[in-house]
Amino acid sequence: MSDAARDLQAQAAKLDGEDELSAKRAEFALDDTVYLDGNSLGALPAHVPERVADVITRQWGSLRIRSWDESGWWTAPERIGDRIAPLVGAAPGQIVVGDSTSVNVFKALVAAVRIARGTGEGHPEGGRDEIVVDATTFPTDGYIAQSAARLTGCRLVPVAPADVPGVLGERTAAVLLNHADYRTGRLHDLPGLTAAVHAAGALAVWDLCHTAGALPVGLDEHGVDLAVGCTYKYLNGGPGAPAYLYVRRELQDRFDSPLPGWNSHAEPFGMRPEFEAADGALRGRVGTPDILSMLALEAALDVWDGVTVDAVRAKSLALTDFFLRCVEAYVPEGLVEPVTPRAHAERGSQVALRCEGAGDVMKRLIEQGVVGDYRAPDVLRFGFTPLYVSFADAERAARVLARTLG
Amino acid sequence: MSDAARDLQAQAAKLDGEDELSAKRAEFALDDTVYLDGNSLGALPAHVPERVADVITRQWGSLRIRSWDESGWWTAPERIGDRIAPLVGAAPGQIVVGDSTSVNVFKALVAAVRIARGTGEGHPEGGRDEIVVDATTFPTDGYIAQSAARLTGCRLVPVAPADVPGVLGERTAAVLLNHADYRTGRLHDLPGLTAAVHAAGALAVWDLCHTAGALPVGLDEHGVDLAVGCTYKYLNGGPGAPAYLYVRRELQDRFDSPLPGWNSHAEPFGMRPEFEAADGALRGRVGTPDILSMLALEAALDVWDGVTVDAVRAKSLALTDFFLRCVEAYVPEGLVEPVTPRAHAERGSQVALRCEGAGDVMKRLIEQGVVGDYRAPDVLRFGFTPLYVSFADAERAARVLARTLG
Repeated sequence: MSDAARDLQAQAAKLDGEDELSAKRAEFALDDTVYLDGNSLGALPAHVPERVADVITRQWGSLRIRSWDESGWWTAPERIGDRIAPLVGAAPGQIVVGDSTSVNVFKALVAAVRIARGTGEGHPEGGRDEIVVDATTFPTDGYIAQSAARLTGCRLVPVAPADVPGVLGERTAAVLLNHADYRTGRLHDLPGLTAAVHAAGALAVWDLCHTAGALPVGLDEHGVDLAVGCTYKYLNGGPGAPAYLYVRRELQDRFDSPLPGWNSHAEPFGMRPEFEAADGALRGRVGTPDILSMLALEAALDVWDGVTVDAVRAKSLALTDFFLRCVEAYVPEGLVEPVTPRAHAERGSQVALRCEGAGDVMKRLIEQGVVGDYRAPDVLRFGFTPLYVSFADAERAARVLARTLG
Repeated sequence: MSDAARDLQAQAAKLDGEDELSAKRAEFALDDTVYLDGNSLGALPAHVPERVADVITRQWGSLRIRSWDESGWWTAPERIGDRIAPLVGAAPGQIVVGDSTSVNVFKALVAAVRIARGTGEGHPEGGRDEIVVDATTFPTDGYIAQSAARLTGCRLVPVAPADVPGVLGERTAAVLLNHADYRTGRLHDLPGLTAAVHAAGALAVWDLCHTAGALPVGLDEHGVDLAVGCTYKYLNGGPGAPAYLYVRRELQDRFDSPLPGWNSHAEPFGMRPEFEAADGALRGRVGTPDILSMLALEAALDVWDGVTVDAVRAKSLALTDFFLRCVEAYVPEGLVEPVTPRAHAERGSQVALRCEGAGDVMKRLIEQGVVGDYRAPDVLRFGFTPLYVSFADAERAARVLARTLG
């Protein structure tokens, strides 16, 4: 073993020893794999199987239809929304869980355009006809934004996040941004961009898929208007677990959903032909909630008991710093190029490395028990979930990477 | 015991003895409850808990991200769609599973309007500007239809199904109908109404929530254009299990979804900024599929092995006939009034009885182990799922009802 390796392994051991979150790892079903793909699919919290078995066998199997009331199925979307709220800096009553991220982006954008057009004397219906969208975003956001624009008579304006302030104006209705770039891991300036959007009289819609559960978001503090996110990455809700929608309290009575299903009715069991929207965040609900997945997510959220997002963020930055240091020490210069920013303020919870033949390299890493993922055309992506990734994992990942490239 | 009761119980025993589906009941987790609410939430197929445990513990817990390929997660929406297809009379490749019924109604109606407007020389964009909707439908369909109309510049025309032919014309873009009325159990004339809609140059969209798995639908045979349905009633997929969308093969290349998420892209992992729709039914997909609920549904569909929908329909009619006979024999005249049609061609798989104080009556029935449900303002609803409801159940339900009202 080289001196560098001996030194870094000692440092990893020391950092793990001082890690206040280290005990959390035992709450997950993990083997000796170095799992750095929690930014794609979070690991299984160990108590989830038993909880889901109870939902299926007792709640569905024995209580059957009674569980809509007796097992709290009916209120799950808002109850679980309130569990997610503190993780994204939201007071209760502003988040509902349900549907996919894509569907929630659609609700949020159409509703945002409607609010922007209806607000204030100076902005008559039709006065604002542009939706600005992050051109570097995960593609689904752009596709859905295009559809929302088409259906509301808007023009889509795709720009890089840094260029957003330059395109804002009195025609801007809504701006859809990703909090972190899914490919590079770059963290965007949510407070600053939100303020710029507001200064132009438009609404800011944020996609939190790559940040919720990994770093503080501060939705209420920064006056974000609407937000969406998935729950299967850093929130460990399970494959395709339902997404969520945040609607800032002050906007809820103007939230006019394009998907006004019976679950968002003021009186869902009144079975009335006329639609009358429920009060509050419930307006974001649509159809019958998907109970098995929703209650698996609810169980998964128990791992957050006693954890602060600030502690998670501190460990995330320490982990990604340390990983970058190990990569520098182990991997010969020129073989990989970090595309994730060094500056903490600009870094999410992943490290992306540009690398020749990245697809093949990732396959070989996975064969050796280091699981990240590959994003076309040339990016190795390593996600760091502070609840279960250790500094020793980071060191091993860099070491295996160096051996694979060497 | 009265002679009537002795006679009806003997008949029930005989009918159960001759029932070719009687062995199916053992495949469900049922106790001695008479469960007549399978038209709201289907009972648990007994093998589902073990299958879901495997999905969670092995597929998610151990294989983690690899399961998207290795456990067939990615292709689940179309694979499970093909499992549902024979139950609704559809050839493979026309159904995808995912999202709620409400969300699928939205996709279907907006896409139908776009197809109707784009078809033929005589129908330029904007030429067809009416969506006709069943005024007696389950409310969510009407709410969503109103939203689809608003976003596509259409007018909503709510009429009773029988009056649909009278309002069709060259302005009609799409017609949304329920195959069976959720309240009365009346079965609507799918072949005749579809033909009438087509004669007017419009598209027919059917909601199959209350018929799929209970009777033959014949989507392909009758040329239905688009259809949606839930999977948690007669398909026993579990609470809030994902819904499905049928797009007739001939229309698939013109199916222009208002929810074009990355899962409906021709190359989902290409991560390209421009949307290019996938071929075929995949266009109905939106975001990341909800795997736990989806694979619970897939497991639940195993109970259909070796069952024909014709056999199910024959038993359903025999059960509802027999139940009505028992009600007539046991319940003093004037206390309940069947609102479900007597004619087989007009009957779904439920019996609705109008009854004073129906809400309280249903509570007392449930206390006595006869579970149906109540629909405001005055309807007792009893659903008959031929896979697990017996003739003895029907007799007992009527007997307990008579005792409760007596």
